[in-house]
Amino acid sequence: MGKNLTKRSEDYSKWYNELVVKADLAENSAVRGCMVIKPYGFAIWEKMQAELDRMFKETGHQNAYFPLFVPKSLFEAEEKNAEGFAKECAVVTHYRLKTDPDNEGKLIVDPEAKLQEELVVRPTSEAIIWNTYKGWIQSYRDLPLLINQWANVVRWEMRTRLFLRTAEFLWQEGHTAHATKEEAVAEADLMNNVYATFVENFLAVPVIKGLKTESERFAGADETFCIEALMQDGKALQAGTSHFLGQNFAKAFDVKFATKEGKQEHVWATSWGVSTRLMGALIMTHSDDQGLVLPPNLAPYQVVIVPIYRNQEQLDAISQVANEIVNDLRLHNVTVKFDDRDTHKPGWKFNEYELKGVPLRIGIGPKDLEKRTVELARRDTLTKEFVAKEDVVDTVVQLLKDIQENLYNKAKAYRDTHITEVQNFDEFKDILESKGGFISAHWDGTAETENKIKELTKATIRCIPLDNPKEDGSCVYSGAPSTQRVLFAKAY
Amino acid sequence: MGKNLTKRSEDYSKWYNELVVKADLAENSAVRGCMVIKPYGFAIWEKMQAELDRMFKETGHQNAYFPLFVPKSLFEAEEKNAEGFAKECAVVTHYRLKTDPDNEGKLIVDPEAKLQEELVVRPTSEAIIWNTYKGWIQSYRDLPLLINQWANVVRWEMRTRLFLRTAEFLWQEGHTAHATKEEAVAEADLMNNVYATFVENFLAVPVIKGLKTESERFAGADETFCIEALMQDGKALQAGTSHFLGQNFAKAFDVKFATKEGKQEHVWATSWGVSTRLMGALIMTHSDDQGLVLPPNLAPYQVVIVPIYRNQEQLDAISQVANEIVNDLRLHNVTVKFDDRDTHKPGWKFNEYELKGVPLRIGIGPKDLEKRTVELARRDTLTKEFVAKEDVVDTVVQLLKDIQENLYNKAKAYRDTHITEVQNFDEFKDILESKGGFISAHWDGTAETENKIKELTKATIRCIPLDNPKEDGSCVYSGAPSTQRVLFAKAY
Repeated sequence: MGKNLTKRSEDYSKWYNELVVKADLAENSAVRGCMVIKPYGFAIWEKMQAELDRMFKETGHQNAYFPLFVPKSLFEAEEKNAEGFAKECAVVTHYRLKTDPDNEGKLIVDPEAKLQEELVVRPTSEAIIWNTYKGWIQSYRDLPLLINQWANVVRWEMRTRLFLRTAEFLWQEGHTAHATKEEAVAEADLMNNVYATFVENFLAVPVIKGLKTESERFAGADETFCIEALMQDGKALQAGTSHFLGQNFAKAFDVKFATKEGKQEHVWATSWGVSTRLMGALIMTHSDDQGLVLPPNLAPYQVVIVPIYRNQEQLDAISQVANEIVNDLRLHNVTVKFDDRDTHKPGWKFNEYELKGVPLRIGIGPKDLEKRTVELARRDTLTKEFVAKEDVVDTVVQLLKDIQENLYNKAKAYRDTHITEVQNFDEFKDILESKGGFISAHWDGTAETENKIKELTKATIRCIPLDNPKEDGSCVYSGAPSTQRVLFAKAY
Repeated sequence: MGKNLTKRSEDYSKWYNELVVKADLAENSAVRGCMVIKPYGFAIWEKMQAELDRMFKETGHQNAYFPLFVPKSLFEAEEKNAEGFAKECAVVTHYRLKTDPDNEGKLIVDPEAKLQEELVVRPTSEAIIWNTYKGWIQSYRDLPLLINQWANVVRWEMRTRLFLRTAEFLWQEGHTAHATKEEAVAEADLMNNVYATFVENFLAVPVIKGLKTESERFAGADETFCIEALMQDGKALQAGTSHFLGQNFAKAFDVKFATKEGKQEHVWATSWGVSTRLMGALIMTHSDDQGLVLPPNLAPYQVVIVPIYRNQEQLDAISQVANEIVNDLRLHNVTVKFDDRDTHKPGWKFNEYELKGVPLRIGIGPKDLEKRTVELARRDTLTKEFVAKEDVVDTVVQLLKDIQENLYNKAKAYRDTHITEVQNFDEFKDILESKGGFISAHWDGTAETENKIKELTKATIRCIPLDNPKEDGSCVYSGAPSTQRVLFAKAY
């Protein structure tokens, strides 16, 4: 019984596309570039949301909701931001359809219902939010303003891939306002750390915290903090970004506050976001040729119990044991599903839950009843063991911890062995093609060199790591003096 | 210290508009008809979401996510549905902006980036979802399909009001598929009951469960179940609807399944939704001339503690007691805020929390410390009492239950005394103008009479109550024979 899944070594990209669909995570829709997130995929996203939301609130943020649409005149107020997103904006121009006079039953846009001002479907919400903040901020007493929004956004990408790059995606965007530059920088750094903690502890994906170069920054930001992860094919993936926006939006929207001393000053801003793209990082980091591998902290159900039986009598006896285990596990906050459907055979179910990445599978057959044991199978190592019934709960609780750790450690080992220091451009190109991963190299700090390297190799500067040691050297491309290495990679 | 809030008796509509803004629930945005939901308002919506989501999952539903956009050709597939929503659709026609060649720094729609097919911003998602379900349903084994989505939708309303009628609003929409008509009808009825239970137990708003007449049905439905509430100004508000869609969408999108016997049949459908409109119902049902009144089950914080002090020493002593109470209350799952800000005076805070409808306020001053008491003020009755410190937790827990019940009972008493049976059209018009509320009257069952009454009085048939007794009579307008009374009202 096969899963008909392309092997990673054959075609990593095809493997990913197939896996997302076969594991019931998402699929392409009738709308170009927009995806349908299926219940199993959405359940994982809900778990991400719940934990992130808890972390945001714990750090003093509140949720709110701002309009989907941005009037063109507001959209263009912050020039760099507008320039950055104008090329990929869905634009609403009309507010009504009418029956086609030439073709009854068909609808056409009603030319009489043209909007006076076009509306941009938000690609990000700085413009509409800062226009709103103008009314909310008068005095230092109104600061800091710490707000987050869970929303859908639209960026008309030409080449789309499920979760990784879609025209519409789900995300959260934090937007904060502060009295001082120092506070705003600290907030941007704090939220980047929140993302790093979340991604490492929940997705079990190790990340490198760093700063973007000027050309890779968010349009409208003075500084972009980021977390960068490495996928199994040696390509990097930006898993989250947090921006120090300076006073750019405050100036564009004239948002000032009275200081304690009564002076009028522009406020300082940050914004930060993670999206359904994290689903892509999760899938690509851990999964294998058998299908999805989910870390227990995000699995919709952590354990599945499959009964193996020939007749109703056997099923009844197995169900009794299974239900005891279900109850015990739930008391220990383990999420568990007992799949006693008679429409599918045990072999089919084993296959299905392997494909869907359920961390632990418990099989119970007539022989197990006799011996008072169950068969416990780990998805991450594909190993099995028999466990005495009375030890099941303790074993499961321990194994779920072990699996979460093992996935992280495995991904970290891969990542750590795929950061290669190079001394010259030949080595650079050689490593990039033969091994991939992050390439740690000296860079002269100019956008010109950065662009040239990108043009020649498709590798971009993923980040300047925050914990970078200072080291004298010369640029891998231009030979000009440099004081630190930066991380290059091909990226999603 | 006043709240400058218009009195309900002076101008109910103005009172509502002011209250929503002053209590920090929502405000109008720069986008025509779209609102900003502020953190305090959003916190209430989050509590509604959490409970509804729990109830949906308990009844076997899973969440998923479908695209924001609906291609025009899919949108028009189910004719009645399309006709119903075509008049108020936001339409995306282009996917790019470019710099205005005549006006640098300004953006214009790029005429070269015109979409081949226009995209409708979803006013509701039946079309895009049923187009997707076609791929998900092959056999009876795939049924029932029980899915819910939390999303934003857009209906280009001409006259908008915060929460009650906005161009963009937040909602959930359930979309289910079933093998038989009976199952689908039972599902529609079940979800209407879930809504009724939720609205009565959490919003403390009594509702009447009923069926819509054909002309008030959802476009594309064979039957619409609804819950109707009554506001303090005697106008009705539809708080939720649940539709039996027959096989209309299955036929429009050709969704068939193989029965156990191997026959191919179209599936049966339901859809059901509640929206941020519930916020309007909540506000208008309970609030008074002093501001918002929130039921404890939905209040962002149920208790606020305000210290009354002249110097730091007093504040320190009060804080100690206050923090003990905070901890005790939290152990009893009471949400509580201790407002020890020194930027605002106690009187200002009392006023603020009254305006924001916090169910219980605890005041602690130096005299309370001496007597080991606190002052406890109820928002719903505006009454105060002194309570011994050791009794605070028990008293608070009991009072929160009492307040929740009291709000419901008060609203129900008002509603029950505002259902008036009338025998003729003069009485109908007289009651409608003098007293308002629901008018229970015989109706001949024709759309003609229904429309005529609407034209003459602005009253519509809110519903045919589900528990209606059969009773012979004659139509209040046409005099034609009738077998039951229906409920008329002016409505939001």
